[in-house]
Formats: sequence, structure tokens, C-alpha cells
Amino acid sequence: MTFTARQIADFLQGEVVGNPEIKVSDFSKIEDGKPGTLSFLANPKYESHIYETQADIVLINNDFTPDKPINATLIKVENAYSSLAQLLQIVEKAKAKKSGIEPMSFIAESAKVGEGIYLGAFSYISDSAVVGENVQIYPQSYIGEGVTIGNNTIIYPGVKIYAGCVVGNNCIIHAGAVIGSDGFGFAPEGETFKKIPQMGNVVIEDDVEIGANTTIDRATLGSTTIGKGVKLDNLIQIAHNVEIGSNTVMAAQTGIAGSSKIGRNCMFGGQVAISGHISIGDRVQIGGQSGVTNNQKSDQVLLGSPAIPAKDCARSYAVIKNLPSLSSQVFSIQKELNNLKVDTKN
Amino acid sequence: MTFTARQIADFLQGEVVGNPEIKVSDFSKIEDGKPGTLSFLANPKYESHIYETQADIVLINNDFTPDKPINATLIKVENAYSSLAQLLQIVEKAKAKKSGIEPMSFIAESAKVGEGIYLGAFSYISDSAVVGENVQIYPQSYIGEGVTIGNNTIIYPGVKIYAGCVVGNNCIIHAGAVIGSDGFGFAPEGETFKKIPQMGNVVIEDDVEIGANTTIDRATLGSTTIGKGVKLDNLIQIAHNVEIGSNTVMAAQTGIAGSSKIGRNCMFGGQVAISGHISIGDRVQIGGQSGVTNNQKSDQVLLGSPAIPAKDCARSYAVIKNLPSLSSQVFSIQKELNNLKVDTKN
Amino acid sequence: MTFTARQIADFLQGEVVGNPEIKVSDFSKIEDGKPGTLSFLANPKYESHIYETQADIVLINNDFTPDKPINATLIKVENAYSSLAQLLQIVEKAKAKKSGIEPMSFIAESAKVGEGIYLGAFSYISDSAVVGENVQIYPQSYIGEGVTIGNNTIIYPGVKIYAGCVVGNNCIIHAGAVIGSDGFGFAPEGETFKKIPQMGNVVIEDDVEIGANTTIDRATLGSTTIGKGVKLDNLIQIAHNVEIGSNTVMAAQTGIAGSSKIGRNCMFGGQVAISGHISIGDRVQIGGQSGVTNNQKSDQVLLGSPAIPAKDCARSYAVIKNLPSLSSQVFSIQKELNNLKVDTKN
Repeated sequence: MTFTARQIADFLQGEVVGNPEIKVSDFSKIEDGKPGTLSFLANPKYESHIYETQADIVLINNDFTPDKPINATLIKVENAYSSLAQLLQIVEKAKAKKSGIEPMSFIAESAKVGEGIYLGAFSYISDSAVVGENVQIYPQSYIGEGVTIGNNTIIYPGVKIYAGCVVGNNCIIHAGAVIGSDGFGFAPEGETFKKIPQMGNVVIEDDVEIGANTTIDRATLGSTTIGKGVKLDNLIQIAHNVEIGSNTVMAAQTGIAGSSKIGRNCMFGGQVAISGHISIGDRVQIGGQSGVTNNQKSDQVLLGSPAIPAKDCARSYAVIKNLPSLSSQVFSIQKELNNLKVDTKN
Repeated sequence: MTFTARQIADFLQGEVVGNPEIKVSDFSKIEDGKPGTLSFLANPKYESHIYETQADIVLINNDFTPDKPINATLIKVENAYSSLAQLLQIVEKAKAKKSGIEPMSFIAESAKVGEGIYLGAFSYISDSAVVGENVQIYPQSYIGEGVTIGNNTIIYPGVKIYAGCVVGNNCIIHAGAVIGSDGFGFAPEGETFKKIPQMGNVVIEDDVEIGANTTIDRATLGSTTIGKGVKLDNLIQIAHNVEIGSNTVMAAQTGIAGSSKIGRNCMFGGQVAISGHISIGDRVQIGGQSGVTNNQKSDQVLLGSPAIPAKDCARSYAVIKNLPSLSSQVFSIQKELNNLKVDTKN
Repeated sequence: MTFTARQIADFLQGEVVGNPEIKVSDFSKIEDGKPGTLSFLANPKYESHIYETQADIVLINNDFTPDKPINATLIKVENAYSSLAQLLQIVEKAKAKKSGIEPMSFIAESAKVGEGIYLGAFSYISDSAVVGENVQIYPQSYIGEGVTIGNNTIIYPGVKIYAGCVVGNNCIIHAGAVIGSDGFGFAPEGETFKKIPQMGNVVIEDDVEIGANTTIDRATLGSTTIGKGVKLDNLIQIAHNVEIGSNTVMAAQTGIAGSSKIGRNCMFGGQVAISGHISIGDRVQIGGQSGVTNNQKSDQVLLGSPAIPAKDCARSYAVIKNLPSLSSQVFSIQKELNNLKVDTKN
């Protein structure tokens, strides 16, 4: 597919600065820009590359003002990153979608599968499972007993969904993710531990994306719930009975301990840890590697382990760097003071 | 199955407070309590729900004294959580157990499998492997050459056990766990690294539970050992030649570096890191996100990175929050002191 | 295979101290040394065991001077660990290599596979994939559309490689690793998030080893790149568009956020976090659990979260432990100073 700058600008409701007839047929990163491609500048860190890129067209934000002349034709849009997403989605949709049930797959007699599904070889659909229309299940995935999966959901290779879990419409679950493994619950019995059977399930609402090798445990009783539009990165741990509000986004290797409730539209960095049995409000942002051990109200930015408001944390960190000199200063003050006390007593 | 409060109390050796004839046929969480169900109150954080729950029966600890009237019938027991576990186990055991060898699975000719096993489709049992009685191996699991698995063990879908590893009786290994991958050992050779072949194995003793996508590396020489009754949560890393004592419990995303020895009955929070080649005593408790870099004696509670006794750590954290004001105070003291010195010299 | 101390010393270009005719046929750890075996002493922490080991031969570094008499025959070499690696590699190479294509595997018609490959049952090679010579693909692995894999590479069970990724020669990828899952990219659209399709791939150069359940995301545009000779441990997260220089080594559970560039010959401890869009120089060493949020020049040793030079960090930590007493000292100084001011004013 080849498009002119004018065609792309019309589609994106943007404005061409430069040659509207120049054509592109592929994408490139601005730092590796190649002739015949379209690139974008969204993060100001990469601005220097726009003056040197070989890309023929660059999407930029309306408010970008170049410091130097630029060779590329620019398309000014409200949000370059979002416009890039729109273009990439067109290309993505144009790709042929897999369909059909491959030999050497298994569908239990009592399972129901919708029209237009793709089922890869070595995948397994258990008894009483219900799989919606146009669902794509790649090879080597496991759909447990009584699992239901909504329409248009994509299950990448090797995903394992335990019995009784529910996955919504338009979800994407990446390779190796495990949904519905037993929550980590044991009652002490002398020196040993007795397993608490985990009788609940996991409910994943619509439009959720779950990263590779992420694990979401089933509830002890009731459901572990992942709200509509939630995006979880790779290698995340969601423990039993956790509830995550809609449109919350978590970066890789974050862990949420049992029974905690996370609000809507939160954003967590990587390797964040949330203790069990606490509540985090809506729109809470938490910096990478932070640890939250208490309830937190909405609309905060937190940092540190234990986490405190990010501004306070930044101030404390600044002092921590200088602690050795602060400590010697206190030592020398004490000495001076002692001398002074001797002086004034004399 | 439907039971009266009296029947349940008799079974648990508890005492009914309320209507002994009321019947329940399912479980519910106390905050979502539904008529016809039994719930429990173990964590005092949830006490407020007991006054409003719709559950007909609630298990409570003997020492619980209500502040207000409660509608539900109560069953007083020594440990409500443990009693719940007993009831859930009955329901769990009543479930039909899978058995039989599904078509499209593979068992090598030289492998031996015990009576009553379940082997799911697309699972693979390699040469010379020995699988005990009543073992359940879900689909898409891999049992390497010469692996032995004890009786009654459950292997969930997609578990991978490398050659030569040993798994005990009554173990549970969750989906995606990897047992016996190569330890991370390389000898520097100029700028590059030469692989140290990992010739040892992993030995998992009886009654161990291993979480989803957890990884346990084989030893360089000898065995990486997981003691009897150990419980490992999801996404944990156990490096080569680690030894974990019996009944130790670790929460998700914890990592133990090579050759370290962990004692018995330890409890580690999530995202804990233990350095290589160190020893941790028995009954050591370590808070989430802590990092331990030195040998630790038994019967301690540790916190922080680097970890120190939890009480000391809590005191240091309290000061860290106030560091900016402490720092300005030192600055102002210095100033006052300088003025004072001038004063006294005049 | 049985060898004398003399034969082994000749092969390693080492020197025998003791009985050159003593024979061994296996390896053992020095603390579990058994007669008829060869052991090694590389880490001085284990020195005490050499005086008691039952192993018949021990490899030691040239510069080792015993404190007490040793029963075992010693072989002195330049680097005991490296010499052990050489011996283990001989044993490893002598093992029969798997080959042949097992029934119940799948190879698409348009895929090409080289001579001497092993393809385990339930593995899947997609359209247009190209697999080199002597590649070993264990059961239940997934090779996506158009993937290319170089010669002699080993893919352990259950590895998932998404479409379009490239794996070099002589690589080892451990069980459950996921290569080429979508990068975590979303553009905000009101309260929800719009997926940025991830059109790039992952390129893994020669001689790379990747740990169990590690995840490497495909680039948005272009490639996520893992340089020649890189060694990644288990449960590591590499985000989209990351570039890792050759011979860099990372311990388990480390995470690198999107678009960051890591230099050559770096060494990262476990649970390290690197922020997105930053650059780390060459030969940078980073301690376990550190968090790096800024560009870092070459040849540094870093520690802490946020990471600073390790020496400074160690000094700050030493003060942190004593913060409560430092804080009370400041409090008492203030008090004394106030008294003194009153005194001098009187």
C-alpha cells in the first residue's frame, strides 16, 4: 500500500507542511528513518533526529516548532503518537486473519465454539467451555472446563486458562500467561501448612490486554476481577481476590497481593509491589519499584518503598545522597558545641 | 450438598450461636454474603461486614466478641480460617478426579506410569521417566528423560520438567512452572563467557506446592533442593544449588540467588531478593521487597534493602520521611552556632 | 569415562600435587565430595571444605596456598572455575544429541528446516519459517510465521517465538521463554487506551542464552536487539525497542523498560530495573534490586534505587542504619544550643 502525504493528512485530519504528493509505503523509527517511509516524533527526547531523518514524512504534534530546517514533509496533527496508532491499526487490520480449526487440536464434545474461530494445533478446549465468534486461539493453549471467552478475543500460543474463568470480548492474552491458577492460601497447622482450596475464579472484562507470562490467580471464594480496558504488561502477578478498576495500566513485573482493590485509570510503573488487603483509589500513579503498604486515596502520585507522595520522596532521596556529609556535619557541630559550652562556662 | 449449622459445628467441633437448623449449600465472601451460604471472619479488617452480611452462617474465632447484633448464625471455632479450609477440602475432594490417558499424548516406551494416572492430550513423557500412582498431568506438560514423580502429584497444564529431576508425593505444580532449567553459570573468557554445563538436577520433596510460571534451576553439580512442605507462589526464581528447608513459604516474584541455603519455616514476602552463597536460618520472616545480602541467624524479622531487623528499619524509614526537615534543621543549627561563636568571641 | 589426575592435568595444562595415578569417573561439589570424583575450589568462601572433602581430585587456582594438609590430589590451574567448565563441556558433548522429527509435530509446507534437526512432538513450525542445521526444538514449542533460527541453536520445551523474529546461531532458549510478544504501547484516548500495533520484531544474535520464562517484546517499529553473546537469566523482561550490547549478562527478574540501550559487557544483578528511553554505557555493573532512571556513562559500578555509584550508596546506607540516633542527636543539639543561647544572652 502506497499513500501520499495529502491522503494521510486527510485521513488524520492533519495539515501537510512540505510536499503533499510525496509517497510512502512503510513505517520507520525517526532515528533509523528510510526513504519511502513515514515516521513520527512524539517524545521530545528524540527531537534531534527530525533534522537528520531520511524518512520522507514525519507525523508531529501541532505545537512542535522546529529549531532548524527539516527535509521531510511534515504532517501536523493533534497527537502524533495517537495518529501513528491509527495508521498502524489500518495496516494491522489489512493483514489476513487466521481462521479454521487445525488438525491435532482438541475440542471436548460438550464445548461450544463460535463461528469464524481459529484454533491452532495442540490447543485444548475442555468440557463445557464456550468460545465466542472470531476468537483466535494459537497453538498449545489450554482452555479449562467451563471457561467462557467473548467474541474477537486473541489467545496467543501457550496461554493456560484454568476451569471456570471468564474472558470478555476483544481481549488479547499473550503467550505463556496463566489465568486462574490457585491463589496462595494456606492455614498453619503446627509447623506445616494446610492448603485452602481455591473455589473462585478469574473474571476478565472486555478490551483487556494481558502480557506474556503474566499470572492471575483465581479467588478463594468469588472472583479475581480485571476491569474493562485494563492493560497488564509481562510477568505481572495478580493474587487471589484482587479487583482492578477499568482502564488501569501496569508495567512489567508488578505484583498485587491478595484481596487488594485497585481503582480506575491508575498507572503503575514496573516492579511495583502492592501489599494485600489494601485499597488504592482512582487515577493513582505509582513510580517503578515502589512498594505500597497502606490504603491510598485517589489522585495521587506516589514513589518509594514504602511509597510516599512523589515530591516528598524526591526531596528525601536528595538528602539521602548527602547523608554521609550531613552526618559528619552533625558530628562536627556537636564538637563545636561542646567546645563552646566549655568556653561559656569558663 | 446441603448441611445444617449443627452438622457443620459437629464436624468442626465448634459451637453454634443462633439457629442450629439453618441450612447452607455453598460458600461466600463475608462482604458478598448471600442467603443459603456459609462465610467466615478471620481477618479483623473485615469485621464490619459481619453485621451486614446476608450469609446464613459465619465461622468465627472463639475469641471474637461482636460489638452489635448479628443476623447470621455463628459457628465458633478455634481458628475460623483453618476450619474453612477443612470444609473447602471436603468439597474439593468430592469433585470427580480426572483419569485416563488421552489420545494425542506421548509416553516413551521406556517410561513407566502408575495406576490411576491422568495424562492430558499433548503432554509428553520422555524415556525412562517414572510417574507414580494417581498422578494427574494436564495437557501440554513435558516430563523430561529419567524424571521421577511421586504418587498423587498434580501437574497443571504446560509445566516443563527437565531431564533427571525428582518430584515427590502429593505435590502440586502450577501451569507454566519450569523445573530444572540450566543454572546461570558462565566462566569469563576474555570479553566473552563460556557456559558451565549444568550437570545436577532439582529435587522437590513431598507436599510441595509451586506457583504458576515459577522457575527452579538445576544444580551445576548435585541438587537444587526444595524441602518437604515448602510453598512457593507464582513467578519465583530459585537459582542453581539453592536449598530450601521444610515448610518455608515464599510470596510471588521472590528470587533466591545461586547456592544460598534457606532454613525451615521461613516466611518471605513478595519481591524479596536473597544474594548468592549466603545462609538464612530457620523461622526467619522477611518483608516484601527486602534484599538480604549476608548470612542471617534464625528467628529474626527482617525488612529493607539491604535488610536489617524490621524494628530498626521501621525507625529508619520514619526518619527518612522527615529527612528534608532534619537537613534544614542541621543547616539552621550550624548557622546559629556560627553566630553564637561570634557572640561569645566578642 | 575414567581419567587419571595426570591425564586431566595434561588436558588442562595444569600441575598435579599428589598422586598422579588416582582415577575419577564423576564430579562432585567440594562440600559433598565423594571418593572417585573430581571437585573444584574457586570461591574462597568454600575453602574450609577442601581440608575435609572425600573427593579424590580437586581443581584449584595456581595462587591457592593451603593452611592445613589436604588428602585429595590437587590439580593447579590458572582458573579452577574455567577449567571445570572445560571438563563439564567434554562430558556434555559426549551425550547423545537428539535428532529426528517426532510424529505429532507440525511443520507448515512453506517452512524450511535444515539437516540434522530435532523436532519434538507437539511443536509447531509456522509458514515461511526457516530453521537452520542441527537445531534442537523440544516438544510444545511454537515457531511463528517467517521466524528464522540459525544453526545449532537449542529451543527447550514450550518456548514461544512470535512471527518475524530472528534467532542466531548457537543460541540456547530455555523453557517457557516468550520472544516477540507485543510491546506495551497504548495511546490515551479519553479515559481509555488505544493499542499501538507493534509492527517490529526481535533480533537475537549468535551465542545468546535466554532463561526460562523470560519475555522479550517485539519493537513497535524496527527491532528489539539482543547482542552477540548476551546471557539473560530467568524471568527477565526486555521491553520493545530495547538494544542490549554484546556479552552483557543479566541476573534473574531484571526488567528493562522500552527503548533503552544497554552497552557491551555490562553485568546486572537480580531484580534490577532500568527506566525507559535511557542509555547505559559499556562495562557498567549494577547491584541487585537497583533502579536506574538516568543515562549512565561507561565503566561504573552502581547501586541503589535510584542508583548512584556503589561506594556512595554504601556510605549512605551506613548512615541510614543510624538515622534514628542521628535524628535524636540533632534534637539534643538543638536543645543544648537553645540553652546556650539563653545562657549567653543572660
